[in-house]
This record gives sequence, structure tokens and C-alpha cells, in this order.
Amino acid sequence: MPQGPVTSSIHTMADVWDAYRSELDGVEDRIHQNLTSSVTLVNTVAAHILNSGGKRIRPLLLLLCARLCGYAGREHHQLGSLVEFIHTATLLHDDVVDDADIRRGRQTARKVWGNQVSILVGDYLYSKAMCQVVEFRSQKINEVLAEACKKMAEGEVLQLYYNGNPAMPEGDYIKIVEHKTAGLIAASCRMGAILAEASEEQQDCVFRFGQYLGIAFQVVDDTLDYTANGASLGKTLGQDLRQGKATLPLLHLLNHCSDRDRQMIKDRMETRTLTEGDLQRLIDLMDESGSIVYALNHAQAYITAAKRELRQFEEGTAKRALSVAADYMVTRDR
Amino acid sequence: MPQGPVTSSIHTMADVWDAYRSELDGVEDRIHQNLTSSVTLVNTVAAHILNSGGKRIRPLLLLLCARLCGYAGREHHQLGSLVEFIHTATLLHDDVVDDADIRRGRQTARKVWGNQVSILVGDYLYSKAMCQVVEFRSQKINEVLAEACKKMAEGEVLQLYYNGNPAMPEGDYIKIVEHKTAGLIAASCRMGAILAEASEEQQDCVFRFGQYLGIAFQVVDDTLDYTANGASLGKTLGQDLRQGKATLPLLHLLNHCSDRDRQMIKDRMETRTLTEGDLQRLIDLMDESGSIVYALNHAQAYITAAKRELRQFEEGTAKRALSVAADYMVTRDR
Repeated sequence: MPQGPVTSSIHTMADVWDAYRSELDGVEDRIHQNLTSSVTLVNTVAAHILNSGGKRIRPLLLLLCARLCGYAGREHHQLGSLVEFIHTATLLHDDVVDDADIRRGRQTARKVWGNQVSILVGDYLYSKAMCQVVEFRSQKINEVLAEACKKMAEGEVLQLYYNGNPAMPEGDYIKIVEHKTAGLIAASCRMGAILAEASEEQQDCVFRFGQYLGIAFQVVDDTLDYTANGASLGKTLGQDLRQGKATLPLLHLLNHCSDRDRQMIKDRMETRTLTEGDLQRLIDLMDESGSIVYALNHAQAYITAAKRELRQFEEGTAKRALSVAADYMVTRDR
Repeated sequence: MPQGPVTSSIHTMADVWDAYRSELDGVEDRIHQNLTSSVTLVNTVAAHILNSGGKRIRPLLLLLCARLCGYAGREHHQLGSLVEFIHTATLLHDDVVDDADIRRGRQTARKVWGNQVSILVGDYLYSKAMCQVVEFRSQKINEVLAEACKKMAEGEVLQLYYNGNPAMPEGDYIKIVEHKTAGLIAASCRMGAILAEASEEQQDCVFRFGQYLGIAFQVVDDTLDYTANGASLGKTLGQDLRQGKATLPLLHLLNHCSDRDRQMIKDRMETRTLTEGDLQRLIDLMDESGSIVYALNHAQAYITAAKRELRQFEEGTAKRALSVAADYMVTRDR
């Protein structure tokens, strides 16, 4: 489905999924075709997490950016599946790093098979993806993807460096988010444009679109950790603080609460304990201080900036879908 | 130093190191120049393990194979340093997987900074290496290295699959060793030949040379776990069994000991406990059954096969050095 006239029926994210269903099924097929290790355990563990209900945001954005730039081929099925492999590899490692037991409402791979298996299957998925990415024989794609992976790891280490420390500057929070989350999303967008042989200028536009959208996505995710309905998020609230992570709403609160409350928060971050009462108190404080609104406004500003990057592109289904996807980042409740 | 007449002064590994000292210093310089993360902790942790006395076997073999095939350039400094980055990334992850506290006589990174940092800095080193490898703009190098990394991860998962299980077929032991250790060594040799623009046939020869040498290297390593002087190995004896790993000497012993001793070994593998008395008993049993000799003979056969791959190449310093390096794999005592 190349870029065409605006499909006025695309208003919600569900419309986007519907419009690109067959394309995403193509990605899905490739994901399963690529699980071909001769070591059965590798395929089992990888399938567990790959089939756990991920929304395939990165392959979708890659596809939409390719279509936006006039791409009419089918290479995005394979490339999208490889991006999803890399994303999945980072989730396997993140769950070990975070001691996470639940992801998307299911037991994590590390909970089922242990940390060791999760680390090594993560390594496998990453290197398997790299093996297949080089088959595209595109210097640009190789560069963009390797750079994104490097930035992800740096973002994760920086996050760990600040673990348990509530005195993180807001600029470093944004740097972490940009590296660990937005990097691969932005790279996915750029790779879509590369497939379409778009101009450098267009590639830069969709890269920035992905970067801003990715930052907003993570900021909203961090906000949901204090506001979402636990069941729909598939995880317990307050997990970031329990893991010693200060995120944007908490950083805002720390600058706007009493010394006593600040001390309470520092103490909970250091001891990585948070009772239901503590959590409720935190949520109430964030409500009083407008910390959630502050973070969501930040996310909204990034979405506005993201959509501005689309201005130079022709109107059409893909552009409409990208705009809806951008709005979805701040309106989603899980 | 391109391939020239035989340097008769190369008899031992020390002679090899001496003859190629300035070349290896070039690799060393690149290793440090490549530690440029904007996240300081990444550089600190990476430097800790990169400066812990590794012998740079892979960069050396890459260099020697390049020279063997007539290469006269200096690109191997950078490429060798990147292979060492990848090797180091696997060590960081291995130490987490093995719960290792000591490597090369020093505290492991995971002991100093924790598992989380080790996992993520490993990810960083791997993706940083990939970033710089793609700068060579060589499709062949990209393919060879990504394939080696994939095989390494598969080998590690297969090893984990058999963890605690003494009934592993010897063929699967060799598969593990070939994947987890020999793959990157063989890839290093092939990349040297690729730099030299050697024929496919020559590339295949040095690849097999590296593969056989790599298998021998690991088999000897596994033997040293039961025989080496603990201090010189920089680790405690019997660690493999304590980690539930059956290696070649143990597999041989299990096929040649009494039911009672077999039961004792199974029990120790399952419970991952091994007293000094157990260890001494094991070593005595291996002595009686010729298990160490059996494993070393295996290693020797691989070295013989490796050296056979060198026959088609011109005599000279590099060939002599590769032959000495191959012999060193079975004669080294640490």
C-alpha cells in the first residue's frame, strides 16, 4: 500500500492497525521464519517473549516511514522483524537488570528459564539480527542500526549509574530516555526512509520524528508507572522507584515537595521498598504538585515537535497514520 | 612486517610475542582509543577487563593470517581491537552467567560493579565493535563477524542446556566448544585473510586452521581446570564441575569409572558442591583412567589438523609463528 490520498477513516490507533494489518502480518511471518536456531532452547525462549503481545511499534513505524517516502516494496517485512528481534534482545536483558518477574502480564523469560538463559538468548537475538541485517548489503542500514544499539547500551548504563540517586539532572533523564528508547525508534523510522531511497533531508526528518516520538513514548510510560490501572499495564505501580529509578514525574515532585517528603522519597529509593501506603502518598503528592501533568505536557511538546517534522511530506494514508500513532503515544493508557 | 623468509629465531610463544610486539602495541593503542563512550562508567568497566592481562590471541591470529596471505597494511590494528572488544563482551556476560568472582587473578567486573553493569557494558562493547566494523565497508567482514557472534551465543545456550547433566554426548561437547570458542578465533583468522584479499580457498584454509586451533584451545582449557597450578591459572580448580559443566576429561571419566564414582560425580554436578577431598579423588580417578591424556590427545589431533591447513602457504615468519602458536595451545600450562 504505497502513500496515496488521505484515508479519512484513520482516526484511532485501531484504525492504523486495521489499515496495515496485512503488512504487519508479513512482519509477523518473518519473525517466526527467522527463529531457526539449531539449539531448540533458543527458539523456545525467543518465541516466549516474541509472542507475548508486543505491539510491534518499531516495525510499524519503519513501514509507515517507508510508505511516507514512497516505498512500494516488501523488504520492510524482513527489516521490521529484525528490529523487533533487537528490541526483544534488549527486553530480555532489561528484565534481568531490573529483576523483573512480569512483562505484559506474563512471567518474564528470566522467571521461567533463569537469568543465564535470558542473557544468552538476548545475545543470540541481537547477533542473529545483525547476521540478517548485513544481508541487505546497505552500508547506511548497517551504520544506523549499529549506532542505535550502541546508544541503547549507553543509555542503559547511564540509567544504572544514577540508580538510587534522586539528584539526577532532568537533562540526564532526557539523555537516558533518548538513548535507551528513542534511539531504536528513530533508527526504525530512518531505515524506512532508506528503503524508500529518500533524500538525506527526508531521512533526517523521519529520524527526528522517531526521536521525539520515542522520548514522548518513554516519558508517558514513566508516568503510567504512577497512574495506570495496574491490571491493564500488566505490571505493578511504583516499580521504577522500587528499582531505584527516578523518572520525570518523580524528579518534578522532588523539586516541589517538602523536605520531609523529599527525605521519605530518597529513603524509599535507597532501600528499594515502597508500601501501598507510600505509593498512595506519592501519587497524592504528585497530584498536588502537578507532577504528572508536568510530565505529560513534556511528552505532548515532543509529540508536537514530532508532527512538525512531517509537514514537508505529501498528505496521504501513511502520513495520517504516523500522525495518529504520534498522538496515541500520549493518549494511550497502557 | 610482511611475510618473508623464515625467521629461525621463532621457537616459542615468547619469540612470537617479541617478533610482533610493535604490531600488537598498535592493536593495544586502538583498544584504548576506541574507549570513547560519553558515559564514563562504560569506559571504566571496559578498561578494567580490557587491561586485565588478556593475551590478545585473536588479534594476534588475525594479524598473522593477514601477513601469511601477504597483507602489508595496518588495518589489522583496528580490526584486531574490535575482535578483542567482542571477545571482552562475551567474557563480561560469561562471568555473570557463571557467577564468577575471579578472572585472570583479579576480581571480575560483576564482582566490582555488579551483574547489571557487566551485562550492559558487554552489550555496549559488542555494539560499539559492530559500529566500527561496519566502517570497514566490507560485506565479507560484516558477514563473518556477525555469524561468529551468533554461533557464540548458540554455543553458550547449548552449554547451559546441558548444565548439571553428565549425560552429554561427546559430539555435543565438541559442538559447544566449536561454537563458543572456536567460532570467533576462526573468524579472526578469516578476517586476516580477507584484509589480505586472499583467495576463497586460502580464506577457508585459515578459517579451518582457526577452528581446529580454537577447539584445541578450549579442550586444553577444560583440562587445565583439573590439572593447572591454581595460582598460575588465576582461578580455583574444579570450577567447571562446580558450575555444573561436563567437559571432555569428565565425560571420558564418566565412561570409565565405577557406578559408585559415577554416582558421586552426578551428585556433585547436581548439587554444585565439590570439597577439596572430592576434587583430589576426581583428579586421582582421571589419572587412573587416562582422562586427561585422552583429552590432551584430542587437542593434539586438532592441532595437527590445524597445522595441515598451513601447508599450501609459503614458508616465512608468519607461517612459523602460526605453527608455534598452534603448538602453544597444547603445551601452555596456564
